[in-house]
Amino acid sequence: MAKKNNRLRVIPLGGLDEIGKNMTVIEYGNDMILIDAGLMFPDEDHPGVDLILPDFSYVTKRKEKLRGIIITHGHEDHTGALPYLLREVGEQTPILGTKLTLGLIKGKLEEHKIRKPKLREIHAGGHVNMGVFGFDFMAVNHSIPDGVAVRVRTPVGDILHTGDFKLDQTPIDGRLTDYADIVKAGKQGIMLLMSDSTNAETAGYTRPEAEVGATLRQIMASADQRVLVASFSSHIHRVQQVCDAAVACGRKVVVTGRSMVNNTKIARELGYLNIADKDIVDAYQMGDIPTRKVCVLCTGSQGEPLSALARMANGDHRTVQIEKGDTVIISASPVPGNEKAVSRVINRLTKAGAHVKHKGSDFVHVSGHGAAEELKLMLNLVKPKYFVPIHGETRHLKAHSELAMKVGVPEKNIFILDNGACLELTESSARVSEHVESGVAFVDGLSVGEMGNVVLRDRQLLARDGIATIVIAIDGQTGKPIGEPELVMRGVAAGEDQKLFDDARSRIVKTLAKTAKEGATDTKVVSNAVRESLSQFLWENVRRRPMIIPIVLEV
Amino acid sequence: MAKKNNRLRVIPLGGLDEIGKNMTVIEYGNDMILIDAGLMFPDEDHPGVDLILPDFSYVTKRKEKLRGIIITHGHEDHTGALPYLLREVGEQTPILGTKLTLGLIKGKLEEHKIRKPKLREIHAGGHVNMGVFGFDFMAVNHSIPDGVAVRVRTPVGDILHTGDFKLDQTPIDGRLTDYADIVKAGKQGIMLLMSDSTNAETAGYTRPEAEVGATLRQIMASADQRVLVASFSSHIHRVQQVCDAAVACGRKVVVTGRSMVNNTKIARELGYLNIADKDIVDAYQMGDIPTRKVCVLCTGSQGEPLSALARMANGDHRTVQIEKGDTVIISASPVPGNEKAVSRVINRLTKAGAHVKHKGSDFVHVSGHGAAEELKLMLNLVKPKYFVPIHGETRHLKAHSELAMKVGVPEKNIFILDNGACLELTESSARVSEHVESGVAFVDGLSVGEMGNVVLRDRQLLARDGIATIVIAIDGQTGKPIGEPELVMRGVAAGEDQKLFDDARSRIVKTLAKTAKEGATDTKVVSNAVRESLSQFLWENVRRRPMIIPIVLEV
Repeated sequence: MAKKNNRLRVIPLGGLDEIGKNMTVIEYGNDMILIDAGLMFPDEDHPGVDLILPDFSYVTKRKEKLRGIIITHGHEDHTGALPYLLREVGEQTPILGTKLTLGLIKGKLEEHKIRKPKLREIHAGGHVNMGVFGFDFMAVNHSIPDGVAVRVRTPVGDILHTGDFKLDQTPIDGRLTDYADIVKAGKQGIMLLMSDSTNAETAGYTRPEAEVGATLRQIMASADQRVLVASFSSHIHRVQQVCDAAVACGRKVVVTGRSMVNNTKIARELGYLNIADKDIVDAYQMGDIPTRKVCVLCTGSQGEPLSALARMANGDHRTVQIEKGDTVIISASPVPGNEKAVSRVINRLTKAGAHVKHKGSDFVHVSGHGAAEELKLMLNLVKPKYFVPIHGETRHLKAHSELAMKVGVPEKNIFILDNGACLELTESSARVSEHVESGVAFVDGLSVGEMGNVVLRDRQLLARDGIATIVIAIDGQTGKPIGEPELVMRGVAAGEDQKLFDDARSRIVKTLAKTAKEGATDTKVVSNAVRESLSQFLWENVRRRPMIIPIVLEV
Repeated sequence: MAKKNNRLRVIPLGGLDEIGKNMTVIEYGNDMILIDAGLMFPDEDHPGVDLILPDFSYVTKRKEKLRGIIITHGHEDHTGALPYLLREVGEQTPILGTKLTLGLIKGKLEEHKIRKPKLREIHAGGHVNMGVFGFDFMAVNHSIPDGVAVRVRTPVGDILHTGDFKLDQTPIDGRLTDYADIVKAGKQGIMLLMSDSTNAETAGYTRPEAEVGATLRQIMASADQRVLVASFSSHIHRVQQVCDAAVACGRKVVVTGRSMVNNTKIARELGYLNIADKDIVDAYQMGDIPTRKVCVLCTGSQGEPLSALARMANGDHRTVQIEKGDTVIISASPVPGNEKAVSRVINRLTKAGAHVKHKGSDFVHVSGHGAAEELKLMLNLVKPKYFVPIHGETRHLKAHSELAMKVGVPEKNIFILDNGACLELTESSARVSEHVESGVAFVDGLSVGEMGNVVLRDRQLLARDGIATIVIAIDGQTGKPIGEPELVMRGVAAGEDQKLFDDARSRIVKTLAKTAKEGATDTKVVSNAVRESLSQFLWENVRRRPMIIPIVLEV
């Protein structure tokens, strides 16, 4: 029997039961590699948190085994943890990606002052060895160009990791998902398929990206004035289609929004975005061009309050003002949680007189992920022995596993894993052997790590009920209060009511008189008494329980 | 020329550029009536706020003119402001509504200790006079039974206010929207139509409620185990269909969740919900019945964390535990902003082993509002001179006004109003004359009113960055600090780092030494210096700007 060390271990550290922060460890003996190193954006449950990373301490603790990090494509939920990870495992850890993927990563690492990373360009159709592993990269379609699936050759059998994918039969750049290579892998035998579950609940096929282009062109052709298009800046195919539609309709393209400017620049330099210099104009020159000859390409498709589109909607964009009769196209789908923010921007644009076209009104967006029939097709092409659905919430992983059963994968060979679950594989078996350290790390300002739940809970309490601070000086000998207590309330509605405020202070004064009379000199005793009495007062009078911080100074 | 006072004034105080808190003032001379008095639920922009009401001070200041309040149907966005409004305008102000509407209102008013309100039952097809006005009530379909549209006869012409409506040709209770009465009103001449815009962006017709019933029955018939259905408790037609499907499939109905228990009780008592006693069982008896003979009807379709369904999903419901193989139907649409919460519940239920059916997977929900074709049909039936789209965000009002133009209402006769806009009408004219006091009032614990934006902004700041309080005692004569400064941080990630905390305190001590040396004895000067230095320290070290509250005690 092989030594425990010589079993293959596959450990997703992120991306399961969530959309975001994708990261998978593959480990055999003394060799470990990572596929993807992504981040997730926080929601209202994480007030004040900038970014959420996977807890990758499992990797950090074994960094001498880490041979490299393979990035399947350039989206932040696959690349965004890299700067933080490199800081822990060494800036010289090789990062493997295709040309555009590395182009986008390079910019991000520079922002983090990582100036000489070891970036190794890979190619769809190419092969690379690292440690005991061999890697074959296969083209896949997604909502960013240059994505790959990865076949990992291991001593006990092969893994196929799809990355994010769809099967677009008419991709904008002509780069089809490489059916031949996938079939070849399937024929030669894939022990384990790990496949993107994002759209597993969506029936049918994802419609072709090219159809969106046709709609964009139609809208631009019939609009009498300016057309503004908001989209994800990394969605270079969409950006290409916006440019193509604009040029075909005789419109010049104005690019605005920091990431849109950056990403279109990188994409043009690397040859992924084709538009002639003469067709791009600076926002400042826009005034010289008739409005029906202008197309503004901008960020803000998620309703982000500081984005170009939101600024335009609010009338505080530096160069672009919405005018009555402008057409705005939101060429994206709101990420779950952003629905309200997007709707707010649509309302403001409408108020400013714009015609707003969005996913709900026109065919201006398709998903970047394959729907149920594509996922089944992938399973049928690969015919894996074992199956692990990845990249999705539990509902998506479950739906994907049901698709797998429909096409004949036995239920016992399907593993719906949690982040941190270690799937141990031999030539003849697969089982979850243990759960390794996993979870989340928060980026909060400059601090990175397991920010205590206490801090988050405090923030939520503060947001809901506010805070009251009482400062009291007492005579250390007698326990008698010196001077008046100071009461400061923030985020407490009652704090605005002068009478209530005065009554609250009187209640505290009374409590202090009582503790002094009882001879209490211990600041803890006095603190607790004051906290208790103010809490009770506020509950009785305003039905609120703000956080109460008594500070008792002995003088 | 008529005196200014004798013009008809129509003033929406809520429901425009928002979904919720519907309220419309109609005023002529010395008579004023209200149509609806609703509330809105706060979102993440209003942390800690319980409810949002329209600012109805315009009404309060003219309460002697208020003849009555007409409620079109029993939803909280049409009734929920009543307890707060009655407190201001008098508990004896007449409230007019149909039987079910009043039944639901009565319960709510009792909760607010308003025990003898003046409830006047009206009937679809009936007529009532108040002051100079006459009112005719017409049946309309909606997602709650017993809804009405109101024709208001005024000295200068008639208004038709649709309430919330759809045109279901096969309503569950057989009560059709009263086409004959609407056509009659149209023939006799409607000066102003005010019509529900919620689904103006949705093409076509809203599908019949009865089709949902067919799906529910199909799912219940083929499920091997328990079926749990979450829905809005006021959606009595849906509840009826759940009960009918359950009974038809030989399942007993278990009702759980406070509002579901209350509303089904009221609806059964008043004759709006028909299910035999023998077909309803108590949750405690459920264990004695085979699982395939059980249907649980519960609250929680919006993912509310304390609802019955969320408790079941989390495994902490008192009587119902989710078992592997249970089927859960979420028979509702997430209200915008609730998408993530609903998805979270779906994920947890899936994890617990349930099959979850929702709007996205099965035809288990239809809207309560008419779509574009129904709105156009209403316009064609009524043929109003003037049109005001109501009940919707700007995007919906705009879409509805475009529908009106398509069916021939001239653009100049369409008014997209803001809350507080006063539309003044004479026999031959309509114009916006002024904007009256309007806006929002927050219910926050026991306090009701215009809670300062300061409080809300403070709460948002606290949630994002936390708070740091520094307490310092200084010698009033010399300005020298007495003892050590106290530093308390809450919601600040850095607060958990002992070294940072100590460094922060040292920085403050240094600053105090400096101010003392400079002879500063003014507490304000010392406060500002301390605030400044701590703020700078935290920005340099953690890139965060928590709220800083320096409290300087002179001793």
